[in-house]
Amino acid sequence: MAITTTHFTLPQSEIPTHWYNLMADFPQPMQPPLHPGTKKPASLEDMTAIFPENIVRQEMDPTREIEIPEEVRQIYALWRPTALLRAIRLEKALQTPAHIYYKYEGASPAGSHKPNTAVAQAYYNKQAGTKRLSTETGAGQWGSSLALACRMFGIECVVYQVKVTYNHKPYRKLLMNTWGATVFPSPSEHTKFGKKVLAEDPDSPGSLGIAISEAIEDCVTHPNTKYSLGSVLNHVCLHQTVIGQECIKQMALAGEEPDVVVACVGGGSNFAGIAFPYIQQNLKKGKKIRLLAVEPSSCASLTKGELRYDFGDTAEMTPLMMMYTLGHKFVPPKIHAGGLRYHGMSPMVSHAYKLGLIEAVAYGQKKVFEAAMQFAQCEGIVPAPESSHAVRGAMDEAIKAREEGKKRVILFNLSGHGLMDMPSYDSYMSGNLAE
Amino acid sequence: MAITTTHFTLPQSEIPTHWYNLMADFPQPMQPPLHPGTKKPASLEDMTAIFPENIVRQEMDPTREIEIPEEVRQIYALWRPTALLRAIRLEKALQTPAHIYYKYEGASPAGSHKPNTAVAQAYYNKQAGTKRLSTETGAGQWGSSLALACRMFGIECVVYQVKVTYNHKPYRKLLMNTWGATVFPSPSEHTKFGKKVLAEDPDSPGSLGIAISEAIEDCVTHPNTKYSLGSVLNHVCLHQTVIGQECIKQMALAGEEPDVVVACVGGGSNFAGIAFPYIQQNLKKGKKIRLLAVEPSSCASLTKGELRYDFGDTAEMTPLMMMYTLGHKFVPPKIHAGGLRYHGMSPMVSHAYKLGLIEAVAYGQKKVFEAAMQFAQCEGIVPAPESSHAVRGAMDEAIKAREEGKKRVILFNLSGHGLMDMPSYDSYMSGNLAE
Repeated sequence: MAITTTHFTLPQSEIPTHWYNLMADFPQPMQPPLHPGTKKPASLEDMTAIFPENIVRQEMDPTREIEIPEEVRQIYALWRPTALLRAIRLEKALQTPAHIYYKYEGASPAGSHKPNTAVAQAYYNKQAGTKRLSTETGAGQWGSSLALACRMFGIECVVYQVKVTYNHKPYRKLLMNTWGATVFPSPSEHTKFGKKVLAEDPDSPGSLGIAISEAIEDCVTHPNTKYSLGSVLNHVCLHQTVIGQECIKQMALAGEEPDVVVACVGGGSNFAGIAFPYIQQNLKKGKKIRLLAVEPSSCASLTKGELRYDFGDTAEMTPLMMMYTLGHKFVPPKIHAGGLRYHGMSPMVSHAYKLGLIEAVAYGQKKVFEAAMQFAQCEGIVPAPESSHAVRGAMDEAIKAREEGKKRVILFNLSGHGLMDMPSYDSYMSGNLAE
Repeated sequence: MAITTTHFTLPQSEIPTHWYNLMADFPQPMQPPLHPGTKKPASLEDMTAIFPENIVRQEMDPTREIEIPEEVRQIYALWRPTALLRAIRLEKALQTPAHIYYKYEGASPAGSHKPNTAVAQAYYNKQAGTKRLSTETGAGQWGSSLALACRMFGIECVVYQVKVTYNHKPYRKLLMNTWGATVFPSPSEHTKFGKKVLAEDPDSPGSLGIAISEAIEDCVTHPNTKYSLGSVLNHVCLHQTVIGQECIKQMALAGEEPDVVVACVGGGSNFAGIAFPYIQQNLKKGKKIRLLAVEPSSCASLTKGELRYDFGDTAEMTPLMMMYTLGHKFVPPKIHAGGLRYHGMSPMVSHAYKLGLIEAVAYGQKKVFEAAMQFAQCEGIVPAPESSHAVRGAMDEAIKAREEGKKRVILFNLSGHGLMDMPSYDSYMSGNLAE
């Protein structure tokens, strides 16, 4: 008997062969990163202290389509193409005429979209002769993804995890260990900067900014070590564009086109991944698809920050980047969406926002978990606290469609599952969630 | 550029329309369940005290193909068809000429194959007017699956979870709560039988047999309540056959046919799911595909138990079933594969074993976790401790192929992921795993 088609799959042969680079299509050029000392545009040499040259070149490359190496696509095939689904039970529960679709990036072994760039970065580092990679992680989605990718290419992996989540969500650390990584709670005693923060505040919950500083210090003080960042930078946004490219094909299978595409933003990578290929459709094909970034109101760089040059880390070790920022000394409240606790926004996403190519909205975490619970009870999948911001945004778009009595096609990125974040759901269910 | 095809997907339209019933093809008939008092074959009325009539009729139905209701297939479409993958990195690590394929049932929202039957059972109960379902769970894979299914059909769900796992793996309980279920650690104070067990041994770790007794007592002492079992019974094996049916289509896409199909066995349901459609191929099409059941050596009903009538639960409340059993009073050691800690084996799987249609092997948990770690490091996905038994079995088949210098096509069922079982991996990695 016929059932409604809600699950749209693509064969392995449809894994994109190229990443899409929005830099080639921006109506105005981006501002370059600056050397923190000279305030002049950062040179290749400035960047290769912490990144391998091939990645720095890609970071600056304005080519529209960049070929995905075969070795990377072979690993993508472990979980890609990911499914696109239509949330018919959620539509019914919301009594909305809207159609709600979601791209499920939680299907990767690490449970989020992060391996899309982790695998690429580990590959390029392997090519460049890197033996060891250092990084930071908030909730652990990024750290576990890099741990997985490093294991696949035989690179040692060291992760500085923001202390509040290290303690609150112990399963993520164990997952990183299973894939062979070493994990330190940050601020740690393993770096000078970590010791300095601890001396000033022994109870510091940590932040992504602090953890980045520790990971960079670890990189520059260890032999054959490079640093890897899971969001913010241009090459990270680039690698994530496999998401949106697959969505365009899958929405065609569904016979619809989105009116609005929604994703959460912390550093900006999963939003970039789903949104940038649609921005291209707007710019090049005259489409009018809205792109909506959803951020936490307690760490709302787009809607409450200012656009200016700022450091990517707390210790002022990175180049200055032109971005929406709350200030690099900002320590966000201990919200459950650890992956969104970052003071700045990706320069590419910031530029798109400045140019009016995208919209942004912010929510408090109670409204976010309320949406996550309803989604889980309708559609099964338990969303990660970060991705739950996108769920909230998509649901509110669907509710607006009901109120306006209009059909609307909504697509959102379910960037990860929350199976390793159950303590956050516990806080919500037991009424202990701070707003 | 061309990469090796390792990921075999089917569109939603290929979700099977029927379940396959091996009962129709057994060369000799099965022995019926017996009433524990009269020792005569259990009647419909004997069974409807705890199950709805439509499920009891299905339990006894010898029809070869049973149509899957549309409402059930619509929910299956949330995660089905699941992917079939080829483990090329594991093959390389083992230096084997064998091809290793795995069916990934961990893609369901609950993370295992269990929703295949949970959704069907919740549907039939809804049809029969059931308002509340009671059940037991070991590691929590089954309890969370029934919680999910009940939520989809608006049925209240009460779960008795074996105490050792309730305490050791708290995320599973939280997942059940997220989907609206109530969870008690078993033995509990909520039933007479639970109280009796606690009076005799306040530190009892619990067992599936005890938890089943509590769930059945809960069922018969509450209004509008039925009981649901996640393994062992004929209708459960039946519902799982969507797995093997999809595999047959996907192996054809891969252009190969398995020489051996491997799955873990506790109560027997995921093994039945992947193996029974292949047994049909052997019986009806003259194929010679080996079917290998892998059990834990500490609870090895097939390889160390005896074939006789025994109770399904500790308190002697179920009908007597003809099965391989370690005795219904057996309390298995506290191994990490909580879902395999059951004294008996599904009557259908037992019958297949007796008739020589399948093989069995048992492993201690250290060798099992060793295999799980290697799989996770090669293929990314962290297997559930239960499913890791199948990984061990498949790897040993691949190693044998290497030793014999023969190509061999191995297919195993990766019945669930281990992301909520990280404390078990912690025990292994820290050297605290008892053999």
